[in-house]
Amino acid sequence: AGHDVIVVVSAMAGETNRLVALAHQAAEDADPGETDVLLATGEQVTVGLLAIVLQARGQRARSFLGFQVPIRTDRAYGRARIEAIEASALLAEVRRGGVPIVAGFQGIDPDGRVTTLGRGGSDTTGVAIAAALKMAGTNVVCEIYTDVEGVYTTDPNIVPSARKLARVSYEEMLEMASLGAKVLQIRSVEFAKKYEVPIHVRSSFSEAEGTLVTKEDPSMEAVAVSGVTYSKDEAKIAIRRVLDRPGIAAKVFGAVAEAGIVVDMIIQNVSEDGTTDLTFTVPKGDLKKAEAIVRKIAPEIGAASVESDDQIAKVSIVGVGMRSHAGVASRMFDVLAREGINILMISTSEIKTSCVIHQKYTELAVRVLHDAFGLSAAPTPSGPVKE
Amino acid sequence: AGHDVIVVVSAMAGETNRLVALAHQAAEDADPGETDVLLATGEQVTVGLLAIVLQARGQRARSFLGFQVPIRTDRAYGRARIEAIEASALLAEVRRGGVPIVAGFQGIDPDGRVTTLGRGGSDTTGVAIAAALKMAGTNVVCEIYTDVEGVYTTDPNIVPSARKLARVSYEEMLEMASLGAKVLQIRSVEFAKKYEVPIHVRSSFSEAEGTLVTKEDPSMEAVAVSGVTYSKDEAKIAIRRVLDRPGIAAKVFGAVAEAGIVVDMIIQNVSEDGTTDLTFTVPKGDLKKAEAIVRKIAPEIGAASVESDDQIAKVSIVGVGMRSHAGVASRMFDVLAREGINILMISTSEIKTSCVIHQKYTELAVRVLHDAFGLSAAPTPSGPVKE
Repeated sequence: AGHDVIVVVSAMAGETNRLVALAHQAAEDADPGETDVLLATGEQVTVGLLAIVLQARGQRARSFLGFQVPIRTDRAYGRARIEAIEASALLAEVRRGGVPIVAGFQGIDPDGRVTTLGRGGSDTTGVAIAAALKMAGTNVVCEIYTDVEGVYTTDPNIVPSARKLARVSYEEMLEMASLGAKVLQIRSVEFAKKYEVPIHVRSSFSEAEGTLVTKEDPSMEAVAVSGVTYSKDEAKIAIRRVLDRPGIAAKVFGAVAEAGIVVDMIIQNVSEDGTTDLTFTVPKGDLKKAEAIVRKIAPEIGAASVESDDQIAKVSIVGVGMRSHAGVASRMFDVLAREGINILMISTSEIKTSCVIHQKYTELAVRVLHDAFGLSAAPTPSGPVKE
Repeated sequence: AGHDVIVVVSAMAGETNRLVALAHQAAEDADPGETDVLLATGEQVTVGLLAIVLQARGQRARSFLGFQVPIRTDRAYGRARIEAIEASALLAEVRRGGVPIVAGFQGIDPDGRVTTLGRGGSDTTGVAIAAALKMAGTNVVCEIYTDVEGVYTTDPNIVPSARKLARVSYEEMLEMASLGAKVLQIRSVEFAKKYEVPIHVRSSFSEAEGTLVTKEDPSMEAVAVSGVTYSKDEAKIAIRRVLDRPGIAAKVFGAVAEAGIVVDMIIQNVSEDGTTDLTFTVPKGDLKKAEAIVRKIAPEIGAASVESDDQIAKVSIVGVGMRSHAGVASRMFDVLAREGINILMISTSEIKTSCVIHQKYTELAVRVLHDAFGLSAAPTPSGPVKE
């Protein structure tokens, strides 16, 4: 179509896992910086290969590694953040009629050492390069090619009538991504939002238009809810009848945070006898560690008991329209109640409402909410999610 | 032993071949620069792994890629030559108590693009780093760990009594390497000779002392011949009864060189009737191409016939002692004649004499020469070559 193209590529399927396993074989607690040296080879192979293939088809092309662009990051090996991208070398190659092929996922730190950006980091590389090009005065769109055709109103494996969204706002995408619709690395969306780079999420296997992740516009508020998401990756811990005194929550969550465990939802109910129940969720994989920490603290905070439950799920509705539509949350509670689904925890933000329920009701809850908020429609011609 | 150590590592066994195959799958005539981007990942993986392993054992260590040292090369992708090595970053790491682990085989060109040094290039990286350290005022030895215990007087598979040489001069090593004793990359020896860096070639699998490749010293001249080598990788072409006129040889070898074929030995005999026979050897793999070129030129130079033979072998004796010992070459011819081995071609240099013979006599020739020049001895305790 006459567009200039810059390509960012990931490693081949399975390659990053293979390299992680190699590092782990070498030492259980492998140095993160040296592990990044290993991991960065996955993308180094694919940029070389793609350049070879394009050249063989008569298209001028050349590969760019993190240090060659350069893509400058901080020193947080394994989860580095991009601090600056120099667009000039890429633009020079484009001006020469070439296609720059950039290694995703990798960068260099201030000492010139190799860093990687964490799982899905190539998304972030792509968006960050688009942002750098935009700041350099270029009119740019970032297309992310993935194994699904776009962002859906919910998981089509659960609700076959799920629709592909034509547009979704950065804010909604952030809520959906963090809630389990694993289409884009969250950080890439934050980057896109910050620099207002539109992202077109589309399939590597079809020509169909995907979903445009973009700035919120008035038309998006016409619908109250854009999507229904769920996650089965969390577990909950309840501390019963804690003394209702200042500093108790800080004590509990300070100890949990110190162990590197990320707490998602926290609920505290004030009861009438001067005690309270403190309930929170953690990643399922951290449940045992978190429970042990809490049980150790329990006597100090006068807790009557500690209970845990890993048979839970979090179901959420997301939509910028919630800001202007009243009663969306209560409608959600009502829909769940009608199906006899008990709500264990509730958490709300400006554009989402989440309920923790028993895990066995997950699919039912997603289906009835998707239906109740008018998200179901005739299947799009592009079909359901590919796996 | 209290020494400071800098390590250079190669890729894992088979990895470079795997990467070459990947590039070849992508395009038959893959771009050499992009192929180097691929190939360099082999050493990137091993430096990361070795750093991880050393750290796990409590030894401070860090990896250095070509661009991080930096190891500056020319732009000859796939066979780049090292132009400069900066020793300061490596020495700084040593001063901090760390072991720098350098990726062998790779460098960067003046544009910051990845290059590789060709097969065996890690040897050259090691020697070049040693040379850079020496120039920086360090007292340095370069140890090359390989799958044999050192340099032998000949191939122990043919002559079980072959001895491991304690010392060998750079010049002898160059002749032996280029003649088929594939222990070190030739370029690494050239580098070592230029900067007078001693190389200790030794086994990765034993503590035994190996062979010191070093400056020639008077003691080395005591023996006439240090080693017997052979090669079965060549073929010969004979052009019969060429007109004995100026410019004929230039015409033939100009055309062969233009096709990128490297000619090794050339023999021209003047005959009595104003014609001459021109005989030369080429790598076996280039025989067909070379023969076709010669047959095309044959009528122009009045040749009576063109013959080729790929059932030949080159047997050579090497030794700096030849300079001071008279009659070494004629002794060689005599030894071969006594066994009824016909000599098809002869070529001599200051420290070697080579004879082309029928291939079927190779092992016999190597054995009798090894014996005749007093190289046989009781087997060393370190045993024969490992494969």
